[in-house]
Order: sequence, then C-alpha cells, then structure tokens
Amino acid sequence: MKTIEWVDTYSKMVDQTVIPYEYKFVNITSGDEMFDAIRNMIVRGAPAIGIAGAHGVILYAQSLAKENLSREEFVKKLIEKAEYMKTSRPTAVNLMWACEKQIEVIRNSKSDIKGIIEELKVNGIKLENEDIEINKKIGDFGAEVVPKGAAILTHCNAGALATVGYGTALGVVRSAYAKDNTIQVFADETRPRQQGARITTFELAMDGIPVTLITDGMCSYFMKKGMIDMVVVGADRIAANGDTANKIGTYTVAIAAKYHNIPFYIAAPLSTIDTSIATGAEIPIEERSHEEVTHINGKRICAEGVNIINPGFDVTPHELISGIITEKGILRPDYNKSIEEVFRI
Amino acid sequence: MKTIEWVDTYSKMVDQTVIPYEYKFVNITSGDEMFDAIRNMIVRGAPAIGIAGAHGVILYAQSLAKENLSREEFVKKLIEKAEYMKTSRPTAVNLMWACEKQIEVIRNSKSDIKGIIEELKVNGIKLENEDIEINKKIGDFGAEVVPKGAAILTHCNAGALATVGYGTALGVVRSAYAKDNTIQVFADETRPRQQGARITTFELAMDGIPVTLITDGMCSYFMKKGMIDMVVVGADRIAANGDTANKIGTYTVAIAAKYHNIPFYIAAPLSTIDTSIATGAEIPIEERSHEEVTHINGKRICAEGVNIINPGFDVTPHELISGIITEKGILRPDYNKSIEEVFRI
Repeated sequence: MKTIEWVDTYSKMVDQTVIPYEYKFVNITSGDEMFDAIRNMIVRGAPAIGIAGAHGVILYAQSLAKENLSREEFVKKLIEKAEYMKTSRPTAVNLMWACEKQIEVIRNSKSDIKGIIEELKVNGIKLENEDIEINKKIGDFGAEVVPKGAAILTHCNAGALATVGYGTALGVVRSAYAKDNTIQVFADETRPRQQGARITTFELAMDGIPVTLITDGMCSYFMKKGMIDMVVVGADRIAANGDTANKIGTYTVAIAAKYHNIPFYIAAPLSTIDTSIATGAEIPIEERSHEEVTHINGKRICAEGVNIINPGFDVTPHELISGIITEKGILRPDYNKSIEEVFRI
Repeated sequence: MKTIEWVDTYSKMVDQTVIPYEYKFVNITSGDEMFDAIRNMIVRGAPAIGIAGAHGVILYAQSLAKENLSREEFVKKLIEKAEYMKTSRPTAVNLMWACEKQIEVIRNSKSDIKGIIEELKVNGIKLENEDIEINKKIGDFGAEVVPKGAAILTHCNAGALATVGYGTALGVVRSAYAKDNTIQVFADETRPRQQGARITTFELAMDGIPVTLITDGMCSYFMKKGMIDMVVVGADRIAANGDTANKIGTYTVAIAAKYHNIPFYIAAPLSTIDTSIATGAEIPIEERSHEEVTHINGKRICAEGVNIINPGFDVTPHELISGIITEKGILRPDYNKSIEEVFRI
C-alpha cells in the first residue's frame, strides 16, 4: 500500500500529523493545498515530499487548464508554479528534484495542454513506483551490513511514511528483519516533532518489528552498554562530499556513534544527493516555528519569555558516516569519489 | 528564599511537579509522606533531596516520639527509619550523606527523646544554611572560568530548585551573571521529565537571566556553530576517579562537548562525591516509570506495544570532564589525586 499516491484527479496521502492517534488519508485537490500540506508536514520525509511536489505540479496544471490560456502561456505559468512548489520546504532536495522532473516533462512535451497533464500524471505515478523499487533495493543492500541479531538505532522517521512505501532507513530494517527476525530497533523520540515516537514506533509496531522508544539524550547510554550495534538514518540532502543534512539531532547521534565505534549509515535514494553543492555548509537549514519547541500537544512546557531557535535539520559531516546506502549499492569514503562514480554508471 | 526549609514541626518545599504552571509550596508532615515526595519528585535535585531526607528523619522522630518507646527502642527504630529513608531514591548520594549526618546526631546524642528531636532539627536547619553557603562558594569559583559574554549550556536543573537555594550549575550562572550581565544560558529540555524546559527556564526567567530553550538533540548543532562556550551541569554522584552520574542525557552532551573542544564542567558540593566507590561503574542507576517516556502531560506520544527502558541517570566518564567545581575550588584531573587531596584539607 502506498502512503501517498495519485488517484485520477487528486493526491491521496496519509495525514502524518495525527499519527499515532489516527491513521487516515486526506485528498489534496489543488496546488496551493499541496504547498500547505508540505509546509505543515501533513506529508513529510524527503522522498515523500518529492512525490508530493510532483503531484502538486499536476494539480497546478489541472487548475491552469481551466483558465483558457494559450499552450505557451500555460507552459510558462505552470513552470512558474512548479518553481514555486519547490519553495514549500527548503532542505530536502528530493522536492526540488521531483519538481524538476515534472518541469522536464513539461518542456519536452509535444502534446497539447490536456496531453501535458496526462504526461505529468504518468510521470508522477512512475516516480511513485520507482520510489518503492528504489527503497527495496536500498533495503536489500543495507541488510547485507546488518549483523545477525543486531539492535539498530534510528532517528526521526525514514520509513514507509517518509516515502511512498517500504522506507529508506526502515527499508533496511524491513529487509534485514525479513532475513533475520531476531533484529530489533531503537527509535529516538526525535524532539521537537517526535517523528520517532509518533511515526517510527507506529510503523514498526504495525509490522510486528520489535522497537524500543528512547528519549534523544539516551542514545549514548545504550551505546556504552553495548546495546546498539549500528545506526541507520535517512537524509534530506547529501552534498558532493558526503556531508548529510537530516532531522535535527542526527549529528549528535553520529558523534555519539563515533565515540563508541558504532557504524553510522545513511540510507537514501540517489535523488537525495545534490552534486551541485560541494559541502554541507551550503545546505539551507529550515528554521521552524518556535511553538514546536515550547509546546507539546498544544500545552506549553516551559516558562514564558524564553528564547527559541528551532533549526529543523543539522548536517552530519562525512567523516562521521560509515557508508551511504543507495539503490546502486553502499557508497563508502572517499565520498567525493564514490558519489561521482555512482552518477557516472 | 529557601526552596525547602524546616518550619517548626514540618518540612515546607516547592512542589516541583507543577512548575512552570504553578509555583506553590507544600507541607510534608510525616516521614512516609517525605519518602513519597522524594520518590515522586515533588522535591528533586541531589542537594535538595539530601535536605529532604534529613527533614524526613526529623519527621520520623516526631512520630516515634508518640509511641511511648524507651530511649533505646526509639534510637534503634529511628535509625532503621533513617536507613529506610536513604532508599527513597538510589542514585543521588547526597540523600545517603544527609541521612547519615542525622544518624550521627542520633548516635552521638546524650539527650532524651525530646532532646534528640531538637538536635535533629538544629542539624537539619544547619544543613539547609550550609547548602546555600556552599552553593555561593561553588558559584564564585565557577564564575572565574566563565569567559566574558559566554553562552553556557546546561542540562536538567541544577538550580535553586535542585538545592535549598542559589543552585550549583545555576549558582555558577548566577555568580557569573552578577559580574557580567552579557552572559546567557542554553537550557536542554531534558526529556523525559523536562526539568530543563520546566524548571531551569522558569528559574532563569524569574531572575531575568537570558535563556534559550533547546531540544536535547540540538546541542551539537549549536556547538558546531560556535554558539556554546562552555557546559556546566550538576551531579548526583561522583566516584573517586571523577566519573559522574547526572540526569540521563548528560553523557551525550559531554561527548558532543569533547568533539567540539568545549569545556565541560560539573558543579557540585563535596557531599556529592562518594569516595567509597572507585569508578562510575559502581553507581546504581535508577530505572524509572515507563510512562515518563511514553506520555507527556498525560497524553501518549507513541504507538502501543513499544518497549521502554528508562534509566534516570547516566555516567559521564572522568576523561570528558574539564573540572569539578566545588565549594573548596575547582578540582582538575587527575581526579583520583585532586579528590583525595580536597578531602584531606
């Protein structure tokens, strides 16, 4: 089952803001609605918001088709809308990548307006299906480096709900579990938005994969006790040198893993790699609402008058990363070389 | 103003479970009530629960005095109660230390039952006053190593509310701020119980000291940005070699500080040092309720069926600690030597 998919004239997706209390689908029927759904994290996870962006372009195309524009005007306005859709969130490059894929379809099309819309739909659905196939490949490559009976720590949610299905980091878990049902997962809560507590535990519990929820500060305690064998997390953007932006808190986990000599892996599709930037210093980090820090479930948890800085992501430098698990195999340091090579294949 | 104090026949303390929503005092009138107040964290913070334990012994003495016991029976039963009081929480050694101080009073007393109770009260109030004096000395020694305009990261709450007043880690902040009002604090939220968010921000906001609340995973992000100049935290128990038990998550912060070459200090009275144990491996770590992890403000934050392990503390190894700020000065590595020396003075 897909957690986000194109249905006829709209995008259907799991509303991730209400998990684990509810598991419900919402239908997104306009481009502006999709822009808000991405920004407000009804859909989240780098690969999933890529697909959402691609769907958003189709939705904008459907609206523009009602405006009696010339084909030329339609194409011009639609590309503007697709560029705008890219700005709904700044860090995950999959969003830009997928919107760009749709822009290519528009530019290369020989069809009329109706035909362009059909081609965008076909491409959107193709991207969905490819995402699942890619995740299964990531899972299978990753499973090869999971030791027998391993306890795998993950941060945030890079699962079926962060993708169209199966997941990247949790894809590795799923593939490993299919071969060896003695593995288990430790899930970081992942404050401020608690995607680990809310979404990762939900996904794994549904699949019957054993999961232990821990608070973000606890990782080192369990590492020192020898209770964590490896770390696998997703990614929002990977620079040409392997520096990786992922959910805030990932960098802290990576430092702790290094200190305890525990392998730390990134699991991500090649579409997450942004070879246009040399290092992680160039990745824009989203600053999110202060309420995410000061409030939980609508209730204030701190004094009034405190300062807040709420970066949504941090960058883990390449030297802390043991390998990047992709659909074309596991990239190893030197990442400048291995990333260049994988795109040459 | 004292956050815990003996008043005539009872112990009066701030109820720390309702901060920052309310700032109210509760009166504890029996030994068993005190045992529960410590266990349920109405009073928390190593120095504060030391005083609470000392008060608890007085409360037990008052009850036993009504039982028409011989002096010998009274002393025997009271010492049993004092030993029992020590077991209300396992990690913070100040509790054992303060109860032991009261046991000494009982053993050394030449008075009748009424006289013993009076001596216990005198000693209890003496410990309260000493705690504040000690904290001020810790603060003054610590302020000497705070750079001008420093941003100080702290974890959990080692403030006025963790002590009788002034605080240990926040004592350092207060003393530094009195000399230089351009310093500021970064406070870790400190999941699961959020003492940083709830109590540290509350305390500092009351004093007008600038404080930025961050989630536990964020510390490395701000360290890398050069926005944290030093870390100062409290302690629940320090072994003879300097290994330090403190609130869960402290060890992760210490690893991150080391990785970024940021000084990491412990601020604690000598009563927190347990020279009877050689290393931190011997410190008992309290396992607390699973609900602390799975629920926030009474609401579940994760799927059903997840595993939980909830250690209340972790141990930061001595090699990550730049110095231990005490009322007798700042102890430096080799801690085996400096700790031995400070107790010889």
